[in-house]
Amino acid sequence: MKITALIMAGGRGERFWPKSRKNMPKQFLSLTDDGKTMIQLTVERISSVVDMEDIYIATNKDYKELVRSQLPGIPEKNILCEPVGRNTAPCIGLGAVHMAKKYDDAIMLVLPSDHLIKFNKMFLSVLKDSCDVAEKDRNLVTIGITPTYAETGYGYIKFDSHVMEGRAYKVDRFVEKPSLEVAKEYLETEEYLWNSGMFVWKLSSILYNLERFMPETFAGLKRIQASIGTPEEEDVLRKEFAQFQSQSIDYGIMEKAENIYTVPGTFGWDDVGSWLAVERIRKSNEMGNVVSGNIITVGTHNCIIQGEKKLIATVGLEDLVIVDTEDATLICAKDSTADIKKVLENLKICNRDEYI
Amino acid sequence: MKITALIMAGGRGERFWPKSRKNMPKQFLSLTDDGKTMIQLTVERISSVVDMEDIYIATNKDYKELVRSQLPGIPEKNILCEPVGRNTAPCIGLGAVHMAKKYDDAIMLVLPSDHLIKFNKMFLSVLKDSCDVAEKDRNLVTIGITPTYAETGYGYIKFDSHVMEGRAYKVDRFVEKPSLEVAKEYLETEEYLWNSGMFVWKLSSILYNLERFMPETFAGLKRIQASIGTPEEEDVLRKEFAQFQSQSIDYGIMEKAENIYTVPGTFGWDDVGSWLAVERIRKSNEMGNVVSGNIITVGTHNCIIQGEKKLIATVGLEDLVIVDTEDATLICAKDSTADIKKVLENLKICNRDEYI
Repeated sequence: MKITALIMAGGRGERFWPKSRKNMPKQFLSLTDDGKTMIQLTVERISSVVDMEDIYIATNKDYKELVRSQLPGIPEKNILCEPVGRNTAPCIGLGAVHMAKKYDDAIMLVLPSDHLIKFNKMFLSVLKDSCDVAEKDRNLVTIGITPTYAETGYGYIKFDSHVMEGRAYKVDRFVEKPSLEVAKEYLETEEYLWNSGMFVWKLSSILYNLERFMPETFAGLKRIQASIGTPEEEDVLRKEFAQFQSQSIDYGIMEKAENIYTVPGTFGWDDVGSWLAVERIRKSNEMGNVVSGNIITVGTHNCIIQGEKKLIATVGLEDLVIVDTEDATLICAKDSTADIKKVLENLKICNRDEYI
Repeated sequence: MKITALIMAGGRGERFWPKSRKNMPKQFLSLTDDGKTMIQLTVERISSVVDMEDIYIATNKDYKELVRSQLPGIPEKNILCEPVGRNTAPCIGLGAVHMAKKYDDAIMLVLPSDHLIKFNKMFLSVLKDSCDVAEKDRNLVTIGITPTYAETGYGYIKFDSHVMEGRAYKVDRFVEKPSLEVAKEYLETEEYLWNSGMFVWKLSSILYNLERFMPETFAGLKRIQASIGTPEEEDVLRKEFAQFQSQSIDYGIMEKAENIYTVPGTFGWDDVGSWLAVERIRKSNEMGNVVSGNIITVGTHNCIIQGEKKLIATVGLEDLVIVDTEDATLICAKDSTADIKKVLENLKICNRDEYI
């Protein structure tokens, strides 16, 4: 069966400030040694199984030019601009109706644009297993990540290790971000996976479930679909999106539908959730520093230092994140990266939009 | 008796990098809240007791323009440029022969250009006491600083608390930078002062002692004096300085001469020896930070942050020195400021002169 992909690239992350800005979110940044941006890597990763003309990018009009310039191989009509953000269910629905206009039915991969995967071959093998399961019946497959520690920042998937379909396990339920104690229990039971937000299903399966569990959204999506290619397309899209309920695909569909399966992935997944991820995904030197730019370190250990042309000299530092850009420099203790958002709050309060 | 002053401004300190550079040493920087540079403050401090035309600045030709622009009130002929650095004895001798060309005799104050003094009135009172002692016989007066802790980075003056001349004590001997243990003993005896490098004497007294203890230098200085105002002045200066032995006034004169007195000063002296001094001389905010520039701090305590236009955001930091300039940024742990010189060594090795 034909495989299509929807890459979700509408996020406006603040956690990579000052590199990430309102007009340059994380998915368009290069954080790896190879110089490619997150969204370029996402497309490259699936390029052997999905044709370029079958890859759709869901974003918003502010980022359309970024998508176009970073992904010149993607047809412009495949760049779907949501008029307003309505969370993942309407976004995925929009992708699905576009694809269904083109193909009677097809496999649809849904992928975030700002995660990293270390072992691409293993990832493709998990995708293949997922496609096999998704082709049957109206199965909805979510790719789970085998947890390596008791993370409290992710949602979890409880699966039933006794009920398999191919390489997939039947999903019992989705659970929200747990406390540390609960996360530790999850890890011990070996029956919980991290919810990665990557999905595999047929167009017919997801549309069936949208109609069933989100009928109003589905009706709107059908009106959008009917307008594709007509002069009214933009108006209809704007009108319908304005009325959509903001809903995640997890709440809207996955927690309610039957036939939910998960394929566990151990392909070196990283959601690149903060500057600390840079240490995992890039090579550190013999002092434990991950360094780029014009840097001199003296007695400096386990620091992440991202500079540009300007000289940055560090003396006697430990466990810091230092990020220099043309107009702003961040210096942050590694254990305080969650507080970078307070800098942004401060900037917003002071109307210093040029830095946001 | 007429009072003249020689301000020594030839230093090329590295400890205020990246603000201080080879072409912008510490004495020309503004490190206080009032925006005045160290050398401007030095001149201002004595302006009520020394006429502008009697203030001489000893520096080198690289800094002549800086002196001229920062001290427009000083006559240009009073800016004495040493052709090569030969330590303080030849420098002071050069000042003395210039002054002796103008006055038969006068009091000569010798002052560093890069120290700070908090209580100017007390300082002037100590100067007056010193002048009173210096006017008598051939007394040489050094201003000692009452130590407040066991500093190992300064030389000390051992005085005889039983032999006084006016407000001055007779000096027993000068001692070099002590170990911590020895410095603690010095502090306990209450008979040691810090050697501040500030001197008061008559021109006739210092010239007499130069002739006695450094006869070759003295002879050269006399030849320089004879050439002042002649077309040969620059040539003679260059030739004589090249032959002078490099010698500090402490070794060359003070440790050998008789009639050495010291007036203890408790006028809030600070040699501004490193970035840490900024914390002592500028106001810190309620978080213990001393901040200037375009700065946002989140969870940041006891840091010194000197920025310019560029935004610097700090998150979760403690006890750091952050200094941003147009082309270089320093981030240094407070307990590692002594290692800033290693950054400069690295820059020298790599021939990156633009940053030095």
